[in-house]
Amino acid sequence: MRTTREILLETKKALPALAASKEKKNAALEAIANRLLAEKDEILKANAEDVEAAREHLGDVMIDRLTLTEKRIGDMAKGVLDVAALPDPEGRVLKRIERPNGIVIEKTSVPLGVVAIIYESRPNVTSDAAVLALKSGNAVILRGGREAFRSNEAIVKAIKHGLADAGLPEELVGFIEDTDHRSADEIMKAVGLVDLLIPRGGAGLIRRCVENAIIPCVQTGTGICHIFVDESADQEKALRIIENAKTSRPSVCNAEEVLLVHEAIAGEFLPKIKALLVDEREAKGLQPVELRLDEKAADIIPGTLAGPLDFDTEFLDYILAVAVVKDADAAISHIAEHSTGHSEAIITEDAGNAEKFTSQVDSAAVYVNVSTRFTDGGEFGLGCEMGISTQKMHARGPMGLEELNTYKYVIRGDGQIR
Amino acid sequence: MRTTREILLETKKALPALAASKEKKNAALEAIANRLLAEKDEILKANAEDVEAAREHLGDVMIDRLTLTEKRIGDMAKGVLDVAALPDPEGRVLKRIERPNGIVIEKTSVPLGVVAIIYESRPNVTSDAAVLALKSGNAVILRGGREAFRSNEAIVKAIKHGLADAGLPEELVGFIEDTDHRSADEIMKAVGLVDLLIPRGGAGLIRRCVENAIIPCVQTGTGICHIFVDESADQEKALRIIENAKTSRPSVCNAEEVLLVHEAIAGEFLPKIKALLVDEREAKGLQPVELRLDEKAADIIPGTLAGPLDFDTEFLDYILAVAVVKDADAAISHIAEHSTGHSEAIITEDAGNAEKFTSQVDSAAVYVNVSTRFTDGGEFGLGCEMGISTQKMHARGPMGLEELNTYKYVIRGDGQIR
Repeated sequence: MRTTREILLETKKALPALAASKEKKNAALEAIANRLLAEKDEILKANAEDVEAAREHLGDVMIDRLTLTEKRIGDMAKGVLDVAALPDPEGRVLKRIERPNGIVIEKTSVPLGVVAIIYESRPNVTSDAAVLALKSGNAVILRGGREAFRSNEAIVKAIKHGLADAGLPEELVGFIEDTDHRSADEIMKAVGLVDLLIPRGGAGLIRRCVENAIIPCVQTGTGICHIFVDESADQEKALRIIENAKTSRPSVCNAEEVLLVHEAIAGEFLPKIKALLVDEREAKGLQPVELRLDEKAADIIPGTLAGPLDFDTEFLDYILAVAVVKDADAAISHIAEHSTGHSEAIITEDAGNAEKFTSQVDSAAVYVNVSTRFTDGGEFGLGCEMGISTQKMHARGPMGLEELNTYKYVIRGDGQIR
Repeated sequence: MRTTREILLETKKALPALAASKEKKNAALEAIANRLLAEKDEILKANAEDVEAAREHLGDVMIDRLTLTEKRIGDMAKGVLDVAALPDPEGRVLKRIERPNGIVIEKTSVPLGVVAIIYESRPNVTSDAAVLALKSGNAVILRGGREAFRSNEAIVKAIKHGLADAGLPEELVGFIEDTDHRSADEIMKAVGLVDLLIPRGGAGLIRRCVENAIIPCVQTGTGICHIFVDESADQEKALRIIENAKTSRPSVCNAEEVLLVHEAIAGEFLPKIKALLVDEREAKGLQPVELRLDEKAADIIPGTLAGPLDFDTEFLDYILAVAVVKDADAAISHIAEHSTGHSEAIITEDAGNAEKFTSQVDSAAVYVNVSTRFTDGGEFGLGCEMGISTQKMHARGPMGLEELNTYKYVIRGDGQIR
């Protein structure tokens, strides 16, 4: 087994070859897509071993996330071609300044350098992260979870073959062979070797990165998303949006976790919520949503009384915390106190409250009359994403290709001095 | 004395008042400028005490940086008005995306929140930092150095009076009263209270922030700037640029520290450098530049033989490290190994080498036939700067008002679900 440091060093060393061969990037992505398809038997075999080993300790949802099929590998390869078709983020002139002294300053987008990602069980992240990094001109360090190790290794092998087919060094994609904490810790301290670390996984991983990383790190993906139903809301619209935000895919970060309802309509609206999310779902044989109610909501509908942590928990499940609030200001204050800064929505027909909510709520995505489920690189038209940033520095919300670039100033002149 | 934590809490609490009164920002800056002028006697008196106390342990250059005069306070007030006159960075729609489903996504610039700056002796940084933060919609935490404590306190008093005059809370500018390491360490860990930390000072301070801060931090200002004189250079142009970059103000971060000369012209060019930077300066009674030469350069001109650290030191003095390199590729490699990522220049008449240098050198500012001294917010036309970022995340190079903003996505629709 090679050490993490050896892999970091060889990835850094390979980077100039990518900078010198920008024109080969798309050919490399096409070759990678072909290799993923050509090597699907090896990938499926490795994945079957991972799944077999994981059955003992993972639940059904996690096993499903881990499992690859011929179709999923096909989707992976198609995803690679989709990224290849996106505009190249490198070399855009973001701003051009001509100064009175004749110098011309071009603020120009350039790759970050080496991007590292530490992620958990889904093996398709391996190819997504690698091709997003490569398309944006970066080398990449992949440090996946233990459960998907064999699958990731087989996918990386195919990616490296694709790079070689296109005449690029295989070392542009560095695969960390050690999946214990030490390798993650070593990446977090890799000053000069890694330009950006993206932790993608549970709250524990992200906290460890924030506390221990001395290289730049973007926090991603924790979403305690709120929907506030204003007094003036179109209640039918509100019901459709909440049903979508809570139940279409509860395990993802842009799903709704908290419902805030204006007190003037709570008596009318909350029974409709209970009917929609509990009674109708039960009648249809679907899993009902467990409602965790603050005291005012519990006076109106039946449900579990919310405990002290229920408004600060990312459930990722069929659970919804519900509170009755005095007005839009109270909703905004509640969100300021409890949100993770991911996505929040107001359902309102009042333009003033919509304006107040969008200007005062300090989250990556703030919605008016739209489901929070749209916070996603694809849905935003960015084509794809490396993760959803919940911090304010560098990138906020979905991180696509442009967010994997930085810029530099290129200044041309004819002997100017100051 | 109030504790650092008390000040952080009250600053955070004051922030919404600024968000709710954006239209008062310029009036507040004008009131601050007036107050700086009106309270100049108090400021000068406080400064005289600082200077008196510092004479024992600070050298002349540092005493000069610390000293305020009536004219310098006038310049400070004028600087405040210059910032007021700049375009408001808040609320710009950076990108507008209409999706096929009818939702409209606006990527909109918004303030970071609370910006903290830890800085050393120059008291004018106090007003610069405060007004840049306020103009961009941020509250600010100021933690200056011990030597300038009384001066900073008097300046902050005037600023707070100006805020009050304009009907804004004085707490928007938080002045840390404790100047020992503990207050700096507390800011570095102030998760949830400070959105961005900008250390502005020596390498030791910046290293401490990078290693210890768990809140986002932008490294600024360390500049080991290189100038490479290519075989094809217009040598007269090169001499003018090097004289400017090395001697016009050696104590600043955009001054040249290292000269790289193509071996094909070193025999002709280096004697001109010695004549210009040593002999002519001596003849004029100016401080000559000490040349620290690698072995090849030392074969051509007299000077000190460079020690192992001379190519990795920010001298901030009349000292220049000189090396002879094989070609542009060797210059680029030398820079990759030794640069701090601030500013580098190539002097060349060869378009291919200019292109190679600008595309391969990975620094915030890369120059062709221009002095590195232009890396500055004012010279770039940004109006001003909070510091020069030498990192790649969030902002690179001069940080002006736009770089003190982040963005959020505001999404409007009519009931869209996914």
